[in-house]
Amino acid sequence: MAWSSRSLNQLSNLLACLCLLPVLTLGHGGVKEGLHFSLESRATNIDGSLPIYKDPTASIEARVADLLPRMTIEEKVSQIIQGDVNGWMNVDDPLDDTLTFNQTGLEETVQFMGGSIWAGRQMPWDKLVFAITVGQKYMVENTTLGIPALFQSEGVHGFTDNGTTFPSPIGLAASFDPALISQVAGIIATEAEGLGVSQIFAPVLDLSRELRWGRVEENYGEDHFLTGEIGNAYVTGLQSGRRRNASSTAIARMAATCKHFAAFGSPQSGINLAQVSGGERELRSEFLKPFNRACVNSLAIMTAYSSYDGIPVVSNSHLLTDILRNEWGYKYWVTTDAGSVDLLINFHFTCDTRECAAKAALENGIQGEMGGGSYTYLTLPDQIAAGTVDVKYLDQTVTAMLRTKFSLGLFEDPYPYSDYLSTLRTPASRAILHQVETENIVLLENRDKTLPISKSVNSIALIGPQADRVTFGDYVFFNASNNGITPLDGFKQYLSNISSSIQVNFAEGCKLWSNDDSGFGEAVMAAQASDIAIVMVGTWSLDQTLLWSGANATTGERVDLSDLVLVGAQLDLVKAVKAAGKPTVVVFVSGKPVAEPWIQANADAVVQQFYPGELGGLAIAEVLFGAVNPSGKLPVSFPQAVGTTPDFYNYLKGSRSVTDSGQIFPNGTLLFGHQYVLNTPVPLWSFGHGLSYTTFEYAGGSATITIPVLSSQLAVWTLQNSWVVEPGAFTLKVGTSDQVFAQANLTVT
Amino acid sequence: MAWSSRSLNQLSNLLACLCLLPVLTLGHGGVKEGLHFSLESRATNIDGSLPIYKDPTASIEARVADLLPRMTIEEKVSQIIQGDVNGWMNVDDPLDDTLTFNQTGLEETVQFMGGSIWAGRQMPWDKLVFAITVGQKYMVENTTLGIPALFQSEGVHGFTDNGTTFPSPIGLAASFDPALISQVAGIIATEAEGLGVSQIFAPVLDLSRELRWGRVEENYGEDHFLTGEIGNAYVTGLQSGRRRNASSTAIARMAATCKHFAAFGSPQSGINLAQVSGGERELRSEFLKPFNRACVNSLAIMTAYSSYDGIPVVSNSHLLTDILRNEWGYKYWVTTDAGSVDLLINFHFTCDTRECAAKAALENGIQGEMGGGSYTYLTLPDQIAAGTVDVKYLDQTVTAMLRTKFSLGLFEDPYPYSDYLSTLRTPASRAILHQVETENIVLLENRDKTLPISKSVNSIALIGPQADRVTFGDYVFFNASNNGITPLDGFKQYLSNISSSIQVNFAEGCKLWSNDDSGFGEAVMAAQASDIAIVMVGTWSLDQTLLWSGANATTGERVDLSDLVLVGAQLDLVKAVKAAGKPTVVVFVSGKPVAEPWIQANADAVVQQFYPGELGGLAIAEVLFGAVNPSGKLPVSFPQAVGTTPDFYNYLKGSRSVTDSGQIFPNGTLLFGHQYVLNTPVPLWSFGHGLSYTTFEYAGGSATITIPVLSSQLAVWTLQNSWVVEPGAFTLKVGTSDQVFAQANLTVT
Repeated sequence: MAWSSRSLNQLSNLLACLCLLPVLTLGHGGVKEGLHFSLESRATNIDGSLPIYKDPTASIEARVADLLPRMTIEEKVSQIIQGDVNGWMNVDDPLDDTLTFNQTGLEETVQFMGGSIWAGRQMPWDKLVFAITVGQKYMVENTTLGIPALFQSEGVHGFTDNGTTFPSPIGLAASFDPALISQVAGIIATEAEGLGVSQIFAPVLDLSRELRWGRVEENYGEDHFLTGEIGNAYVTGLQSGRRRNASSTAIARMAATCKHFAAFGSPQSGINLAQVSGGERELRSEFLKPFNRACVNSLAIMTAYSSYDGIPVVSNSHLLTDILRNEWGYKYWVTTDAGSVDLLINFHFTCDTRECAAKAALENGIQGEMGGGSYTYLTLPDQIAAGTVDVKYLDQTVTAMLRTKFSLGLFEDPYPYSDYLSTLRTPASRAILHQVETENIVLLENRDKTLPISKSVNSIALIGPQADRVTFGDYVFFNASNNGITPLDGFKQYLSNISSSIQVNFAEGCKLWSNDDSGFGEAVMAAQASDIAIVMVGTWSLDQTLLWSGANATTGERVDLSDLVLVGAQLDLVKAVKAAGKPTVVVFVSGKPVAEPWIQANADAVVQQFYPGELGGLAIAEVLFGAVNPSGKLPVSFPQAVGTTPDFYNYLKGSRSVTDSGQIFPNGTLLFGHQYVLNTPVPLWSFGHGLSYTTFEYAGGSATITIPVLSSQLAVWTLQNSWVVEPGAFTLKVGTSDQVFAQANLTVT
Repeated sequence: MAWSSRSLNQLSNLLACLCLLPVLTLGHGGVKEGLHFSLESRATNIDGSLPIYKDPTASIEARVADLLPRMTIEEKVSQIIQGDVNGWMNVDDPLDDTLTFNQTGLEETVQFMGGSIWAGRQMPWDKLVFAITVGQKYMVENTTLGIPALFQSEGVHGFTDNGTTFPSPIGLAASFDPALISQVAGIIATEAEGLGVSQIFAPVLDLSRELRWGRVEENYGEDHFLTGEIGNAYVTGLQSGRRRNASSTAIARMAATCKHFAAFGSPQSGINLAQVSGGERELRSEFLKPFNRACVNSLAIMTAYSSYDGIPVVSNSHLLTDILRNEWGYKYWVTTDAGSVDLLINFHFTCDTRECAAKAALENGIQGEMGGGSYTYLTLPDQIAAGTVDVKYLDQTVTAMLRTKFSLGLFEDPYPYSDYLSTLRTPASRAILHQVETENIVLLENRDKTLPISKSVNSIALIGPQADRVTFGDYVFFNASNNGITPLDGFKQYLSNISSSIQVNFAEGCKLWSNDDSGFGEAVMAAQASDIAIVMVGTWSLDQTLLWSGANATTGERVDLSDLVLVGAQLDLVKAVKAAGKPTVVVFVSGKPVAEPWIQANADAVVQQFYPGELGGLAIAEVLFGAVNPSGKLPVSFPQAVGTTPDFYNYLKGSRSVTDSGQIFPNGTLLFGHQYVLNTPVPLWSFGHGLSYTTFEYAGGSATITIPVLSSQLAVWTLQNSWVVEPGAFTLKVGTSDQVFAQANLTVT
């Protein structure tokens, strides 16, 4: 079996680590007084009875308690280091469909890192099923205790290995529709479950309060409440149900993995992984709230790479132990992100050695170690033997892992389903996809009822670098966009569906990534030849293969912007098309807010389509022609400029005293103000904004509405470190955005 | 006596407050068992002996302890509310020199707010002396206890009432010369002391880590160490010495007022007064360090307007009591900033009533109330009578105030000096001013030894909106700039001084505040007609009168920018002049970093002059012609753009992993990177950068250098809330900036 260079690197890393290991010695669990199994046969009881941990009818806690003492130190450590399916499969060529595996690699993987297996590698479905099947079979049948593994993959907006791709999370949140997002998550789980995957690394509950950061598209926006509600819907949808053959004690069919715990989304200067400034109140009042809402019953949590107030999260006992484990009572599996423990050595510089890093992560975090680094946890058997690491932390971590596995019913049947094809990319899933695609679209401006486009027009111009392109957000596999429909094809399909003769005049105008304006002439001509012009511009991300190859992109993981304007010639293209004199609709296809006040002020209509899923090209046509009434709302405020950020709506009172804003007029005239001298902190469009083709009127009538308000929603975190509901007046706002609302007072006495 | 409308408003506010007061009742201090004074004559002892508090030879603590119990509740409250000299003087017309006062106003002021008096109002010196003299005389001779007041004024870069104006604090810091700054502060103190002022509201120790904020010019830069050292020099220089006739127990001649305690300088979105995000480690490791270094012996501290991690500083017991009073043992006077207590009601919204606000500020902060608000502390007598406020906090606050006064020797002789003119604007002060003006100038770029300008040139072009203008920073009085020399006059004076025939061709080119480029032609012609072109551009602030009138400015208090580029036509002017083909020197005159990468890349030389003092126009000529070798260093990093901020040099490891930066080339070509996609977090010029006309070479020789390192300088603040020096390697860097340095390792074992 051929190994790729990457695999070889990993293997040699592994082997390098193994050289450091002493001869493995059996732990002492089996010989402790009172235990009812022998050293020689830990998986059976001396009296011949079925071990409790193998009893599907026993409680999860009893099964965990029975299994843990049967394990050796080495087996325990293996449970909490992430292995990789590439340990026994050749995964270099994503199209390769050879159903063979490397037995030695499998055995070594299971011996040293067999608790959870990274299976988020692109391969044909039957190969993935084969890989998981042989892996689980070996673990169940050929290891002493027969503990199956978690098989893990990605799914923040679709099961990545050729599952259905939905809009990016920011777009899912724009639906403001938790019930729908629960259905979306259910489809992701169903597609993954049939293939044998048991853990999905989603949802992302970071807050988009730093818009330069590349991963804004992976979040549910700036608001902790919306993020918590969408996140809770996602977790619920992903986990609800039970695997086939699972015992009745199983509580979920898939382990959701809330990430990145916590406070990862506001990196200094917008730079990926950078430290986050904040204190206990901001932590409690903002960053932790979505996790507390959505994740207490999530079967897994992933920790953050960054530091919060100077302490690396991965070794932050306050976050991971005091709050998560002790206050919240979180009892399931917690894992680091990839390579995260090594960052203590070469990034945070708080440890000099792998031993130090492993100890810091385990003892402070009760968490497992993901791959991607040097496998520092391989030092744990030695450290425990030497007494430098307390075995109780290892036991706590293994206990959490076992609890997650029993909660999934994995011990009863961890295998893929033979009929997995029947649950992949189904027509029913397609209908849900179609719905969420339309709910991802936000109508921002609509002057003189420019939209919807009348079906009586003779022609439309479809212009711009986003018009004949499928732009998915990050966290999709190579060539996933081949499953998508471009807007150009979407318009044609829609018009064909309604038997319309409307002509579509397409011109790209310019590339996303260039200042070359040589295509402007064609674009202007297209506009002039049409009754209305639609210009599609925005940002772009890439699939995981291209993104990490270094190909150009403006959003996505570790793709951080210093500006929020349209890149290259795009704004000039919009201006040129608008100058052609036809009603001009600008569509932003983007993974984060684009800050272009000229477009807000001058376009006849502005539409936001967050990175769509596979049917986004069709949905945008349906919305623009009014086949669907737009209902999306902004989950994140759109600033005037990068220099006016952060501009999230729920700022602390007193933090944005707008008295007199300045302005630079298009003709160059300067109006001087103070906050800011030549700009305003008021966003172009604020959180919650989103028009429809229906007109709503406010402040005329009255009605009695009952809205339950939890006291926890009114509580503030005090200097004395407790939640307190203080007496006083609270203002409840109900409306379409934080700038258009009705309000009522609630007084706490 | 005429009252201005502003004064009337204040009076009616005061009267409105008075209506709420009950009949004032005498406190019970005088009748307590064991006290040796009678209720009727609290200022004398029953046995006829001199009260200890009047004994100049007694210890300060003994005097405080003797005086406090003699005071009524009302007298105590009056000690901790700031009055205003406008209570008895007509201050409407700054040129008015009428030496009369309002007796009723004086009596009322002393009765209700007589502990400290705001005298930072513009008036002729003899009028100020008159005002202070009659005020102190009344208090010493006509009140029961005869307690003199602190008379307070401003002086962050010069005593404001027509004292010597030095460069703005950011420029003082650019000297990197604490000994010199101590002399500067000494001059400020001397000028104020003679006039009877006893407290100066300086230094500012906020860190410039948020460059959009308007008050960056008032700080000593981004670095807590430099800020602490310059601040300490300032406090020492301001306070050192003893007032004439002061007792030997007096320890200072002037109360410095460290502000704004604490963490005021990083407001969210750069907006003045906005909340600051941060935790205990950032507080301890950054924001508090300068205060801890410079202010433990400062006789006063002023608290911040803002909130830190969601808790308004003015009511933050952790900051003001736990840390400042208890940990640091700070025992002197702490005051709020103007109107700060009312902000709890109408800005932070943590209190509904003046009673609540007064209680919160007093009990959490052991601090007095400055004017500018509704005088919430007038509610204290009632609240103490009702038992809602504990009198012990009042006593602690009054004790701190009395301690500061005794430490100044005010009880011996609080009056202005008859020969005050001899200590104002002296030739000796002028020499120090001249030195600091040159040390304020930083040579940023000097390609092909463009500078110094050869004295053999025939002509120079002096171009730009800063060339014939005196641009002082904020915190100077109306028309203070009349005391300054413009660069144009400075060049002429310098050339005249050296009997040079070099021709100066001046052209303004454009205004600071306009896009009007009609003056470009003249500017280009001036450059073409000269051997070298100097283009002076930048930001501007205004004096306190104009600034608060709303006249346009780009820096200063509550003048917050959303961008850091040159405003208006200035960059285009530089480009036009450079295109004329002559060596082009760009001089930034500014109060904060200007982010113009084109100038960094294209100017033949770039010079930074932070807002100068009165001799800045001469100093820039001397430096450019090489009469003085430039020695200034940047106290703050200059970013590429507002979107790459913050970019302070001492970022936490891991927060700026620069792997591949992108770039927008002048021809429009885009080079895509990741941090950032089209830019870099590496500053244009970093903290500490500053060239000279001497060339230094590195990495050749070796020498033994001994640098004392305090363990406190290596300590980190742990999650367990203590300072710990952790074992490991530390890197010591010695050099001209954080990008050019020699380094050595220090290992803690």
